Amino acid sequence: MDNHAVKKQQAKADTKQFDRLFVQIVNDLTEQDLSHSEVGDAIRRLKQVLEYNAPGGKRNRGLSVIASYRELVTSEQLTPENLQRALVVGWCIELLQAFFLVADDIMDASLTRRGQPCWYKRDGIGLDAVNDSFLLEATIYRLLKKYCRGEPFYINLIELFLETSYQTELGQALDLITAPPNQIDLTRFTDDRYKAIVKYKTAFYSFYLPVAAAMYMAGIDDEMEHNNAKAILLEMGEFFQIQDDYLDCFGDPAITGKIGTDIEDNKCSWLVVEALKRVTSEQRQVLELCYGRKDNESVNRVKSLYTDLEMPKVYSEYEDSSYQRLMSLIERHANKLPHSIFLSFAQKIYKRNK
Amino acid sequence: MDNHAVKKQQAKADTKQFDRLFVQIVNDLTEQDLSHSEVGDAIRRLKQVLEYNAPGGKRNRGLSVIASYRELVTSEQLTPENLQRALVVGWCIELLQAFFLVADDIMDASLTRRGQPCWYKRDGIGLDAVNDSFLLEATIYRLLKKYCRGEPFYINLIELFLETSYQTELGQALDLITAPPNQIDLTRFTDDRYKAIVKYKTAFYSFYLPVAAAMYMAGIDDEMEHNNAKAILLEMGEFFQIQDDYLDCFGDPAITGKIGTDIEDNKCSWLVVEALKRVTSEQRQVLELCYGRKDNESVNRVKSLYTDLEMPKVYSEYEDSSYQRLMSLIERHANKLPHSIFLSFAQKIYKRNK
Repeated sequence: MDNHAVKKQQAKADTKQFDRLFVQIVNDLTEQDLSHSEVGDAIRRLKQVLEYNAPGGKRNRGLSVIASYRELVTSEQLTPENLQRALVVGWCIELLQAFFLVADDIMDASLTRRGQPCWYKRDGIGLDAVNDSFLLEATIYRLLKKYCRGEPFYINLIELFLETSYQTELGQALDLITAPPNQIDLTRFTDDRYKAIVKYKTAFYSFYLPVAAAMYMAGIDDEMEHNNAKAILLEMGEFFQIQDDYLDCFGDPAITGKIGTDIEDNKCSWLVVEALKRVTSEQRQVLELCYGRKDNESVNRVKSLYTDLEMPKVYSEYEDSSYQRLMSLIERHANKLPHSIFLSFAQKIYKRNK
Repeated sequence: MDNHAVKKQQAKADTKQFDRLFVQIVNDLTEQDLSHSEVGDAIRRLKQVLEYNAPGGKRNRGLSVIASYRELVTSEQLTPENLQRALVVGWCIELLQAFFLVADDIMDASLTRRGQPCWYKRDGIGLDAVNDSFLLEATIYRLLKKYCRGEPFYINLIELFLETSYQTELGQALDLITAPPNQIDLTRFTDDRYKAIVKYKTAFYSFYLPVAAAMYMAGIDDEMEHNNAKAILLEMGEFFQIQDDYLDCFGDPAITGKIGTDIEDNKCSWLVVEALKRVTSEQRQVLELCYGRKDNESVNRVKSLYTDLEMPKVYSEYEDSSYQRLMSLIERHANKLPHSIFLSFAQKIYKRNK
């Protein structure tokens, strides 16, 4: 088998291990205390919250930790304990995401998530889901304590998760400020604002966090090295979100598995930001009139405006230039880190259609 | 001046310093970034959230850190830097409380807090307050990083705040499970459940956390010492909450500054738990019928039942026996810690009427 095929098989085996580990993780977080005379009932609630909200996603972020870790260490370091730890830290990222998604769904008044009702929409849950999201966040640090305490990188990981949480929360604040549900104001949808939201709300936790965690676990804590990796990974994160925005409108729901609602939700999407750069004053009127409205006619008028403006072509050109930019960033910034970390990431996200 | 008068003057000066420090804290958390081209708007939001929600409370928890720290260290250790750090860690506890209160008010559908509308009730805030509560939580770790990184107790403080948050969240979960707003079920209001909620939801963060933080800062990290302090402080926390529950119904609003609503809110209060132990089957019918109802007549029937059951006398006896129990706990468990830490705490809370 060539190197590529070996890696693919390895990734498949890791995915299997990762999924199996979830049962163990839930056990670690609840087992001792389910029969606890004082907090047993609260722990039973935590178990439900975990099982409903943590699995069921694409697990890309969680799996990136083990994939990056394999690229960074020598084969001697690939002990069962180290691999287990990398898988657990991967789950910590999935739990961080679950924490944010449970809360974001409340704030956005969303109805479904990953093909099932949002947690807060379930019978008898409602706004108690706010506290459930806190419990999900707390599990991250309980797992780090259980699996990584005593390791030289323990404090690095705690600080990394805490800082990344803060960055993501700033991004969410920015997003909420920029597109309040009842006020439509297209002048807020600027290029700079778009990039800031994407970077803070998505790119730090989805792209930098998994690789940075693997770097710390591999003993790489040099600030320059981290900044180099960050430059590359945030660029990837930006592209990923732009693609997501594009697919929200132009993707095939049969393939993406979801029906986009960015137009009706008044989202600061890459499409509207780019469209605003290209509209005539008449076309801008259409956007002003129709963007952020729930009725089908308005949504369709925005969509056909996007088509008139040839947004699919604009996107495709952007995708190519972003890919070139990324490769040159990797050339310049990967430094001592193996390029393969970034390249295998890039392979997964460019030219995806779901 | 005698020792007591000196301490009182010291506490007064510390309170002044503590209040002054808030401006500096807000500055630390926002200054560099208010003009940040990417997240400036989110930082401006954070500033509003801090200024609305962090000050305005009694500050007992925050001030306990510096008071305990003074009792634990030698006069040589009382350097300006160390005192400053103890004040900052005090603010971290106030911020932890602000984080919980902003979220609890959403979950409990509360209207006012500390004499002003709850944050989520303000125009244009609503459920975005969920993310604001996350931002408040994040400030704790940013302050610890800024002021305590490099200190030998840095990791102890981080772990302490994380664990205490988790315990408080378990307590909140337990509270929500025990008294869901629309289901009235008095069989859930048991002694054991009451104690568990109080311990987890209030006592850990209000009583153990400030003293434990001061202990770590003073270099005391021995587990046994911490467990001894915890035993005493959790007992105090339980008494404090029982007193709070008592004052909710029997306190003078002109002195407490708030109008209690525990009866209409179906709260698992000490009064209802103790009343349930003493009722005849006819009196129990009254509780079943009237507890947790909003109308004045129901509330008044519960109140007069409490009077029939001589709850003020029951409370007063409980207060005395709790005080005795506490003193004997201090005798047995204070160990190497100066008794004055616990005694000065106790002085503040026993026989209070607000």
